[in-house]
Amino acid sequence: MSATAGAFEFSLVGQKLAGRSGILALMDDMGRALTLDPEMRMLGGGNPAVVPALQALVRARLTELTADAAACERLLVSYDPPQGNPRFLAALAALLRREFGWDIGPENLAVTNGGQTAFFFLFNLLAGTFAGGRKKKILLPLAPEYIGYAEQGWEPDFFVACRPNIVWPAKNVFKYTIDFPAVEAALARGNIGAIAASRPTNPSGNVLTDAEVHRLAALAAQYDIPLLLDNAYGTPFPGVLFVPAQPFWSPHTILTLSLSKLGLPGTRTGIVIAPPAIATAIASLTAVAGLANGTIGQQIVLPWIESGKILEFGPQLLQPFYAAKSTAAAGWAREYLDAAGVEWALHANEGAFFHWLWLKHLRIPTQELYARLKARKVLTVPGEYFFFGLPEDWPHRHECLRLNFSRDAASVREGYRIIAEEAARAAHES
Amino acid sequence: MSATAGAFEFSLVGQKLAGRSGILALMDDMGRALTLDPEMRMLGGGNPAVVPALQALVRARLTELTADAAACERLLVSYDPPQGNPRFLAALAALLRREFGWDIGPENLAVTNGGQTAFFFLFNLLAGTFAGGRKKKILLPLAPEYIGYAEQGWEPDFFVACRPNIVWPAKNVFKYTIDFPAVEAALARGNIGAIAASRPTNPSGNVLTDAEVHRLAALAAQYDIPLLLDNAYGTPFPGVLFVPAQPFWSPHTILTLSLSKLGLPGTRTGIVIAPPAIATAIASLTAVAGLANGTIGQQIVLPWIESGKILEFGPQLLQPFYAAKSTAAAGWAREYLDAAGVEWALHANEGAFFHWLWLKHLRIPTQELYARLKARKVLTVPGEYFFFGLPEDWPHRHECLRLNFSRDAASVREGYRIIAEEAARAAHES
Repeated sequence: MSATAGAFEFSLVGQKLAGRSGILALMDDMGRALTLDPEMRMLGGGNPAVVPALQALVRARLTELTADAAACERLLVSYDPPQGNPRFLAALAALLRREFGWDIGPENLAVTNGGQTAFFFLFNLLAGTFAGGRKKKILLPLAPEYIGYAEQGWEPDFFVACRPNIVWPAKNVFKYTIDFPAVEAALARGNIGAIAASRPTNPSGNVLTDAEVHRLAALAAQYDIPLLLDNAYGTPFPGVLFVPAQPFWSPHTILTLSLSKLGLPGTRTGIVIAPPAIATAIASLTAVAGLANGTIGQQIVLPWIESGKILEFGPQLLQPFYAAKSTAAAGWAREYLDAAGVEWALHANEGAFFHWLWLKHLRIPTQELYARLKARKVLTVPGEYFFFGLPEDWPHRHECLRLNFSRDAASVREGYRIIAEEAARAAHES
Repeated sequence: MSATAGAFEFSLVGQKLAGRSGILALMDDMGRALTLDPEMRMLGGGNPAVVPALQALVRARLTELTADAAACERLLVSYDPPQGNPRFLAALAALLRREFGWDIGPENLAVTNGGQTAFFFLFNLLAGTFAGGRKKKILLPLAPEYIGYAEQGWEPDFFVACRPNIVWPAKNVFKYTIDFPAVEAALARGNIGAIAASRPTNPSGNVLTDAEVHRLAALAAQYDIPLLLDNAYGTPFPGVLFVPAQPFWSPHTILTLSLSKLGLPGTRTGIVIAPPAIATAIASLTAVAGLANGTIGQQIVLPWIESGKILEFGPQLLQPFYAAKSTAAAGWAREYLDAAGVEWALHANEGAFFHWLWLKHLRIPTQELYARLKARKVLTVPGEYFFFGLPEDWPHRHECLRLNFSRDAASVREGYRIIAEEAARAAHES
């Protein structure tokens, strides 16, 4: 099938961005399992669950849009401006002002084709090579951090990450906290273009405390660089949070939201809340890179943005659904891992829908454990991918797995059982 | 509104991609007019018309998807693999093999969030800086070429364009043809990473002849570089073509398709048909830059790809609709421009839905004419934006307007009347 033709040479940037990346492996695994392999136990990617009550609302709304010919045309046949649908932007700005008192208007907002695209744009806008040949990097104050960022810089050596402190709130439960002296030392080196963190953290389910966020924001203001907060899972929406956390924005903060974890990943809808110059730049990048954004996600949620109802979905529908999943899966983890006699811990699950399993003294890299589990029809994400930007190796990076606990109970339970079995087998290899 | 904060420094790449670009101005004009200013006569951007027969099919299909809870979940709640939905890819490969005998399988295909994103990826994969510091450029064999490419290179000085020959098939009707000696001279300079052309050409509505395409493909093969053909409007679909033209693909060709001009721009669905190594690279870029593609466009057209019906929409529905629009608008152009006494010509409208109006001896740049027309509620696209990559200035570049003739007859007619009036006024300025 033409396999020999077309071995065209790629540019340096092309080689970097189009290489085999962790996020490609993850998305490919997940997409193929979801579409082609119903036998696979899907503890891999970040696909949201079908939350019945929310899905019913979405279906009703889509039915309403489709029933109305003019609405259906608006939905499909018109390009929005690159910044986003004006009515959507106005409604969202009004909601955020009204509910949180943030001093923003539509000029502070920009829509992107999904939250990850927002970071692709923001990272390359704020780091890389600058006038006069100066180089700047993105500082990740708490590693492990989201796998999807790892290859987003179009220059090599794009990230600096800091190892966290580890505290133990309960038996077999650990939590990362920011090592601020390490963050301050990294900033003091003078080549940081922005600070970036996901909240809840993907992969660990950690939620930066309000105090940690305020301290990061103060450091960003001190260095006159932005703080990027990736709110794919958190507050103000979608609201998959199991601990209290205040929504946060300030003029030095760039906050991103997404509709994916509300159950709309197929619409690719991300939102950037930023100083106007940043929002304008994002709109320009959207126009140049892809003309415009998808319209459908914005149109589906528009009435819920206008009414403010979108803020209720997290606390009323998603939080109870995912908290029950988390608790059940944590029970199976304890049951099977204790029975298998392996040394283990789960990160405190404060938000998102992942367990971050630490298998101490595993003896094999989690890359290898991942391969063995996949052969047994359990899809996971190996931890190594999430520790990019650290200057030194760290045994911990080879001892963690990210596990999506949101699918059907039978396959999650069986998945944890097989993980415990394989972890025990690996622990007993010499 | 926080206008003073957030004046963060941008990287060199960020400054280039996030500057004021022609495509941003165009999309912003169009999107705002479509969503906010119903008074504006929309002869600007490339928004497709609502073609009633096709829109009815789309609505029926979306209704069917929404009525079925499982289908609605597939539509919205699952990520596809970054390469695209496997069932969609398999169906499209089968269709193209069956109908055109192309030696391709799903491994030759990749979906992107719209056709323009495919070019953003392809250009930066195939041109820019290479190992050892070598530089390569994209060769445009026929300027004027699509405005949306102009700023897509993440390095400066990314394109080399060739001036075309101009022939006169009829009174007041001109046509561009490729100046092959100029193209061969550009290739012989040895720094070309790929040849790229839209077919039909956006903005001129020119359709490269089958002979021109074969000759470009032969040159690409000779230099072992790809030929990129942007088929946003043409064959095999959507099929907005008013002259015969064969669909073309070869192992040295990268052909892109789009669902936008079928009436689905809001879904952002582009398709790349390429050697497997290129399709794989595009999937990697999708994963890194944006995780996955929108699912909805692919699901809407899936049955029409499987049945082959998608190939009928152009000849049966779009071609008659847009041909009637084109003929009517050309009549108004002749009527008003002749009456106004200005020197004018239209490019032969062989495909797409633009008239490319040449106002000879205009005396003002079309940038200025555009501004005057916008003030009179007629949105157009000034010609200057489409002549990037030419080494020298050319008076012709300041004398052309791109006019979308696909909106309602009353506003197109009134638009042409006002254009003729303003053109006459400009021609009489000293």
